[in-house]
Amino acid sequence: MSQQQTDLYEGGTPDKGNWVEDLKPGLTAEGIFAVASAAARPKKDGKAFLSLELQDRTGSIAAVAWDHAHLAPRLDPGSVVSASGIVDTYQGQPQFKITELELLEEEIPSRFFLPEGQQDRETLHSRLSDIRSSIETPHLVELLDRIFDEEGLLEPYLEAPAAKLRHQAYVGGLAEHSLNMAEHAAYCSRFYPEIDGDLLVTAALLHDIGKIFEYRVDTVIDYSDEGRLEGHIVIGDRLIRRAADSIAGFPEDVKMHLSHLILSHQGRLEYGSPVTPKSLEAVVLYALDLLDSRVATFRDIRDSYAGEDRTWSDYDRLDERFWYLKSGAS
Amino acid sequence: MSQQQTDLYEGGTPDKGNWVEDLKPGLTAEGIFAVASAAARPKKDGKAFLSLELQDRTGSIAAVAWDHAHLAPRLDPGSVVSASGIVDTYQGQPQFKITELELLEEEIPSRFFLPEGQQDRETLHSRLSDIRSSIETPHLVELLDRIFDEEGLLEPYLEAPAAKLRHQAYVGGLAEHSLNMAEHAAYCSRFYPEIDGDLLVTAALLHDIGKIFEYRVDTVIDYSDEGRLEGHIVIGDRLIRRAADSIAGFPEDVKMHLSHLILSHQGRLEYGSPVTPKSLEAVVLYALDLLDSRVATFRDIRDSYAGEDRTWSDYDRLDERFWYLKSGAS
Amino acid sequence: MSQQQTDLYEGGTPDKGNWVEDLKPGLTAEGIFAVASAAARPKKDGKAFLSLELQDRTGSIAAVAWDHAHLAPRLDPGSVVSASGIVDTYQGQPQFKITELELLEEEIPSRFFLPEGQQDRETLHSRLSDIRSSIETPHLVELLDRIFDEEGLLEPYLEAPAAKLRHQAYVGGLAEHSLNMAEHAAYCSRFYPEIDGDLLVTAALLHDIGKIFEYRVDTVIDYSDEGRLEGHIVIGDRLIRRAADSIAGFPEDVKMHLSHLILSHQGRLEYGSPVTPKSLEAVVLYALDLLDSRVATFRDIRDSYAGEDRTWSDYDRLDERFWYLKSGAS
Amino acid sequence: MSQQQTDLYEGGTPDKGNWVEDLKPGLTAEGIFAVASAAARPKKDGKAFLSLELQDRTGSIAAVAWDHAHLAPRLDPGSVVSASGIVDTYQGQPQFKITELELLEEEIPSRFFLPEGQQDRETLHSRLSDIRSSIETPHLVELLDRIFDEEGLLEPYLEAPAAKLRHQAYVGGLAEHSLNMAEHAAYCSRFYPEIDGDLLVTAALLHDIGKIFEYRVDTVIDYSDEGRLEGHIVIGDRLIRRAADSIAGFPEDVKMHLSHLILSHQGRLEYGSPVTPKSLEAVVLYALDLLDSRVATFRDIRDSYAGEDRTWSDYDRLDERFWYLKSGAS
Amino acid sequence: MSQQQTDLYEGGTPDKGNWVEDLKPGLTAEGIFAVASAAARPKKDGKAFLSLELQDRTGSIAAVAWDHAHLAPRLDPGSVVSASGIVDTYQGQPQFKITELELLEEEIPSRFFLPEGQQDRETLHSRLSDIRSSIETPHLVELLDRIFDEEGLLEPYLEAPAAKLRHQAYVGGLAEHSLNMAEHAAYCSRFYPEIDGDLLVTAALLHDIGKIFEYRVDTVIDYSDEGRLEGHIVIGDRLIRRAADSIAGFPEDVKMHLSHLILSHQGRLEYGSPVTPKSLEAVVLYALDLLDSRVATFRDIRDSYAGEDRTWSDYDRLDERFWYLKSGAS
Amino acid sequence: MSQQQTDLYEGGTPDKGNWVEDLKPGLTAEGIFAVASAAARPKKDGKAFLSLELQDRTGSIAAVAWDHAHLAPRLDPGSVVSASGIVDTYQGQPQFKITELELLEEEIPSRFFLPEGQQDRETLHSRLSDIRSSIETPHLVELLDRIFDEEGLLEPYLEAPAAKLRHQAYVGGLAEHSLNMAEHAAYCSRFYPEIDGDLLVTAALLHDIGKIFEYRVDTVIDYSDEGRLEGHIVIGDRLIRRAADSIAGFPEDVKMHLSHLILSHQGRLEYGSPVTPKSLEAVVLYALDLLDSRVATFRDIRDSYAGEDRTWSDYDRLDERFWYLKSGAS
Repeated sequence: MSQQQTDLYEGGTPDKGNWVEDLKPGLTAEGIFAVASAAARPKKDGKAFLSLELQDRTGSIAAVAWDHAHLAPRLDPGSVVSASGIVDTYQGQPQFKITELELLEEEIPSRFFLPEGQQDRETLHSRLSDIRSSIETPHLVELLDRIFDEEGLLEPYLEAPAAKLRHQAYVGGLAEHSLNMAEHAAYCSRFYPEIDGDLLVTAALLHDIGKIFEYRVDTVIDYSDEGRLEGHIVIGDRLIRRAADSIAGFPEDVKMHLSHLILSHQGRLEYGSPVTPKSLEAVVLYALDLLDSRVATFRDIRDSYAGEDRTWSDYDRLDERFWYLKSGAS
Repeated sequence: MSQQQTDLYEGGTPDKGNWVEDLKPGLTAEGIFAVASAAARPKKDGKAFLSLELQDRTGSIAAVAWDHAHLAPRLDPGSVVSASGIVDTYQGQPQFKITELELLEEEIPSRFFLPEGQQDRETLHSRLSDIRSSIETPHLVELLDRIFDEEGLLEPYLEAPAAKLRHQAYVGGLAEHSLNMAEHAAYCSRFYPEIDGDLLVTAALLHDIGKIFEYRVDTVIDYSDEGRLEGHIVIGDRLIRRAADSIAGFPEDVKMHLSHLILSHQGRLEYGSPVTPKSLEAVVLYALDLLDSRVATFRDIRDSYAGEDRTWSDYDRLDERFWYLKSGAS
Repeated sequence: MSQQQTDLYEGGTPDKGNWVEDLKPGLTAEGIFAVASAAARPKKDGKAFLSLELQDRTGSIAAVAWDHAHLAPRLDPGSVVSASGIVDTYQGQPQFKITELELLEEEIPSRFFLPEGQQDRETLHSRLSDIRSSIETPHLVELLDRIFDEEGLLEPYLEAPAAKLRHQAYVGGLAEHSLNMAEHAAYCSRFYPEIDGDLLVTAALLHDIGKIFEYRVDTVIDYSDEGRLEGHIVIGDRLIRRAADSIAGFPEDVKMHLSHLILSHQGRLEYGSPVTPKSLEAVVLYALDLLDSRVATFRDIRDSYAGEDRTWSDYDRLDERFWYLKSGAS
Repeated sequence: MSQQQTDLYEGGTPDKGNWVEDLKPGLTAEGIFAVASAAARPKKDGKAFLSLELQDRTGSIAAVAWDHAHLAPRLDPGSVVSASGIVDTYQGQPQFKITELELLEEEIPSRFFLPEGQQDRETLHSRLSDIRSSIETPHLVELLDRIFDEEGLLEPYLEAPAAKLRHQAYVGGLAEHSLNMAEHAAYCSRFYPEIDGDLLVTAALLHDIGKIFEYRVDTVIDYSDEGRLEGHIVIGDRLIRRAADSIAGFPEDVKMHLSHLILSHQGRLEYGSPVTPKSLEAVVLYALDLLDSRVATFRDIRDSYAGEDRTWSDYDRLDERFWYLKSGAS
Repeated sequence: MSQQQTDLYEGGTPDKGNWVEDLKPGLTAEGIFAVASAAARPKKDGKAFLSLELQDRTGSIAAVAWDHAHLAPRLDPGSVVSASGIVDTYQGQPQFKITELELLEEEIPSRFFLPEGQQDRETLHSRLSDIRSSIETPHLVELLDRIFDEEGLLEPYLEAPAAKLRHQAYVGGLAEHSLNMAEHAAYCSRFYPEIDGDLLVTAALLHDIGKIFEYRVDTVIDYSDEGRLEGHIVIGDRLIRRAADSIAGFPEDVKMHLSHLILSHQGRLEYGSPVTPKSLEAVVLYALDLLDSRVATFRDIRDSYAGEDRTWSDYDRLDERFWYLKSGAS
Repeated sequence: MSQQQTDLYEGGTPDKGNWVEDLKPGLTAEGIFAVASAAARPKKDGKAFLSLELQDRTGSIAAVAWDHAHLAPRLDPGSVVSASGIVDTYQGQPQFKITELELLEEEIPSRFFLPEGQQDRETLHSRLSDIRSSIETPHLVELLDRIFDEEGLLEPYLEAPAAKLRHQAYVGGLAEHSLNMAEHAAYCSRFYPEIDGDLLVTAALLHDIGKIFEYRVDTVIDYSDEGRLEGHIVIGDRLIRRAADSIAGFPEDVKMHLSHLILSHQGRLEYGSPVTPKSLEAVVLYALDLLDSRVATFRDIRDSYAGEDRTWSDYDRLDERFWYLKSGAS
């Protein structure tokens, strides 16, 4: 560990140092950053320098390091470095001129790099405990115990994002989205008494659990190999089915129905569900998923214009519309 | 009024007499029925007889009236008759052999012919009053007063169906569906505080109000001319906009937003909305509409197999799936 | 067992008796048939008779049994009866007038009711053995051993149909279709040497194995509950993954890739695959599946007009075209 | 008003000064321009300068103003400035180096900024008068009087564009497109005598009238809030219906049919029409709209390559094709 | 030729005899009819009788011929018979009891069986001559001469239908539709002077000429083998290209453009055009085709309810709408 | 011919000189290149210089020529130049500073500019000869002789690419793709004996032959005018049909079927086939086309990452997926 790193790790936990959003021209800066891209390029004198893009959860910045071209092959996207130097301007944009640069091998807290939701781990955990304690059906209680406690998925569940790009694409997003749906499911099963409430709430909690394995989350959120090859729906169903199979006496028809709920929750084949919703709980689960993800999408879009007095978002290619930012309670 | 009719009207209100579901072979029967179809046909002796299909809300039955062929031109589908005779069997099916037949011109209660929902008018009215009294925004309060009270749409609203074929295709269906959504909207605006709750609840109450004019409801539910030419979305928006325009000081941006909510509530252009949902309240309204109509669809399908011990519905062409009738709370 | 049944079972195996296709007016007949539908109906004298539709793999026939109305509640669709009587004509169509009728509880060979493919079990078994012995990758060899031999799926695999309605919707259809694809896959991996041949052949053999559980096959081919709720793709993937997990040292990346092959083999989300083909072997598997099922579809259509000198099939609603029956080698 | 402005306004009407297309390197220039974008950026010395993009109807140009960074917050896109300075080259492109810059608050003729069609206001007005005088049905005559004359929509109608991006996206485009369709409609109703010609011509004139309010046209063409929230179809229908309602004795069925024509004129739900064309006049109106907008699209594309000897346009993403520029009369 | 036939052919041309629409119960009738279907069926006495469905252009009727079962194998659909007997009633429907029946081998005028348009051959011919004489471009004049006169396609062109089911599915329909479009094309090329009018008019005349060979028209309109295998678009393009190739000096780019017009006239790949319209004339041709076929569709639907006072058609599955029959000039 | 050109042509054949991929900063270079774009731009002194993008089959490079602005009007995209100068760096990218530049009018071998497949002309020719000699049906033998030998299409066939962008978009790609399919077709017709093997193999060889004329291949692959106006499917069908028509006694039904195979081979209307596959051979041909083009696509994608150790491709917009580069035999 170099002197520089030692400084950042003072006291046992690494210190982030400067955030990207604070790197203004003229500043002498040091900090821990993720590498977005890195390449060796020729200088006019024929020697090579290192051209980088660095980022943390507050943004990204162009950087150059005149004397570190040899590091280029090891600086894969997502690798983590400590860097110090001064901030200059190049072609009208800030540029970080790095004088000291080291590749870090230690584990760095993902909160340096990843956005976090508004609810912290404790809030999410407490909401999860509450909703779990409302479930009375013994085999469903046992299923959740098995998955969260015995198989150790509680922590990953509380940390996983709900998406790569959008609606709850932040640490804790999966839990926040699932808890929103589960609490809403509880309301629905009071409103429509013919709903099997415990089953619907359980399915709401677990419907996206495959996302824990669909994404690879370290300094960025990206798909894992199995995420791309199998998708979170099948990964999640497999995980839940194995847990259910390991519980003596878990009713076979509930296993099937629970699988159906997980598999059909995206509502249409063309959205990636291998079967369409055919049960009462399945149609409700799909509508609740639509509801919470649309609200979260709107929130994300609106927040990205925070501080601007705008009526409309830019055109949103993904959803093929402009968003009316003036809507919502004032 | 003939003697027969007099009997049925005894005491001021007409008496339904026998229901179609009770017309078993061997029975001597009389009752009030709607004409589904009627045609004069030649008998072997060259004279004409009348061949009919009669119906009420419990079903339909084939009928013949040997001596009433002259009535054929006046028996349009949907007209109402009183008939008496005996029930026989023809080609393995019950056939009502009518000896006395009269065309009724009086207004006959639609409950003889149309299915009714499980909630009666009083329940619906009381739910509507409750939700209306929860709204505090003055111009929205006034808007609902204007529409329901001053323009006299309260009664039609409480009686209209929500569909011709399915999900709440019964007397009171529109109100039941709208109230479900409005109550759910109130829950949502507590859950997501950034929602403009009064606006969402108002939109939920009014989103389908154009259906009052989209359907022609007497002895059957059918589309009106304007229903086919304009559709309930535009009819409803026009009605609401006129009411809003008549209220001094109704904010212009709320008028626009309310129109947007009505116009976009079916969620996609190909479902008949001329604009896609672009506001927070609009995406929520669409999801709630989806939710309540899907629950109602499931209920309708399941109820149509009441008394049968079936796991699956027949193939449902409209929704392109079999329904899992064993789902729901047991 | 009644005298009648005894006759049919003479010598230990039940005797089919007459086939439906032989029931011509005037014949005195007896045989074993599946019940397509059954209902008690009133006779003119007020008593009830039994109206049935009976079928075997050669067709179906209307039937009446004047004295067996009491059996109606037990004659579910798919139940099996022995019946004797004479064949008459009713409204221009043959009608079987049954004098003796018994519900059979014994297991009846499915070949009485279900169509069979052109290749018998031995041929299919021998083709399977050949192709299995061509696979050299140890963990894939072991996987097939586990599934076919240790888990006892060999027999169900050789008997299952490949579809409910069409392309190989007969006993042995699953094996025939899978073997065609596997042999073709072997050819492809010689033609395109960059293909992982053992993996592709294994995937071809197993891609539809979930159909063993997707269909309920006794007297008719129908979907099982899990077939409708989960679909054969997920059922098959789960089965294969469990077998692979039980094999020590089965490479994790092969598990993922094999899952990908099973999950993506229908080629598009809207055809029910939860992921699209992303690997070389996956795109090949999809094309081979398309190829063999289209050939089989053509064959089925053409065979249904056997004996007729036609150039064109009737309009095929499923595939939205007329088929050119004069194509193919003459 | 500054000296500079005074110069441009000399004689009462503002003088455009130089057009963007004339700003060649080396020129000393002054003129009135619309602001496409503006931002304060840091100079190397730490102070801020203003970086702009300016435009008029002949094109756009990059600009810098070293001493006017303080204006940045007031220079919203679409605002209008007068600027003088010299034209230089930066990175191979012309750059306007501004020495004097003022924000103009006065109303500036939109013809400085917006493209104009080939037909001037008088031509359009005269065509409109002609076609209006050909209509004989009293209530339709009165409807057009009401809309154009009493409600003062004549001028906006003659100035509005027909689109934001393409097919008649210029001043006068709405009138030109509508008149083309109306004259064509008159021809059609002579050709097909079963057409109600007066109704079809009226609908052709009015079908897009909502575009007056769908677009916000000052220095650029953009959507208005109500344009995005409601769309021109509903806005137009509402406007027409109100006018019709205000005419005593306007037949109710004509109101409905006229609404149907406006609402269905885009031909398909997925194109934004809430109902599909169901009447004779509606199918004709849709075809005429398709015809004139396609011709206009071709014209726009072809004109954008004026002066180039090309056979093919670049790939047109909107219409997903290359256009054959050599077609048309030579 | 039998005595019966002799009677019908008296005077050299066959006599139609009774039309189907006149076959009322009680009538003794004879006439020439097309066979829609024919099958031998067993009588109660074990012998066979012939069950038929006969038709002419006025409708169809069920028929029986007790003594002609031996004719069944020769009575293919579309074959022509002369029949005499009496009209009776069976199960409430008219039934023609045939006593004399002969299969006719002679050529029978198609007007006995096929509906005819409102314009006779002379009118169509005269319109064609007029429009042809308006074309001045020499190679296009020569092309039409070649196709209509030298290759003898004039008569087939004047007789072919424009469709099997609808829009001008009658004798002369192809010419009527093509002439409507050509006259309209002439109008368009005056209205939009940048259109190459002669080319557009020629393409309008020829765009559907492949339909001459796509349909097999004798007693019914059906697809020919090449119609199903190749489609009228490719057949027509081939025919036109061959004619153009045979004309010395026909410009190569006009050949290409003309092919493009024929190939793209259905406007979209999914409507069967192998290329989308890319030229000015191509987009106009598509819009004119849409216009005239939609008007013709409306006319067909409306005419099928002639004499009924209806506001709406039945649901039209092909176009997925109800049609507003009250539209059009009154 | 200049001195420079003379050098490159030394010995009769032109010498390519340096390849683009070798143009590293600091190098003095000369070579023959294709012009991708060229424009005259103003220097600071007001005079013009020439800014170019040059390319050959190894890549493209930015270039400037200070003294050759006068050549700009003649340097159309695709024209060929010889250039010498030195390689420098501009804005971090290599830039070729040209001192001598001449436009070449001579024919330059397309292998300088176009990528080549892995199989050379001889290999492809030999495969073609082999498969042709396996065909025994006389009229099909004669058809291939006519097309390849008498009409001189052999050489163009062996040189044409199979696509503009992808799957075999290289010299020889058409032949390679067609031969792969033909050999595969031969296998299929042994596997499924009901296939007409000679017909299927012939169709496989010829299915894309229209691509010879669909693309204009000189220094780049681009569409020809007829390629865009008619498409390779119709061009190919026309070519084949003419050849067949010129053969005495070629069976008419085989002509139709062969046309059907060519026309339907893209499998769906929306993929550009004017008819859907209706024959046995047609469904097989479509599946084989899908198979070989998908394998080739995968190969192209994988090869574009050669030398990189990647598991996944970048997102492929055309096929809307990431590709799993680790698949295939290792």
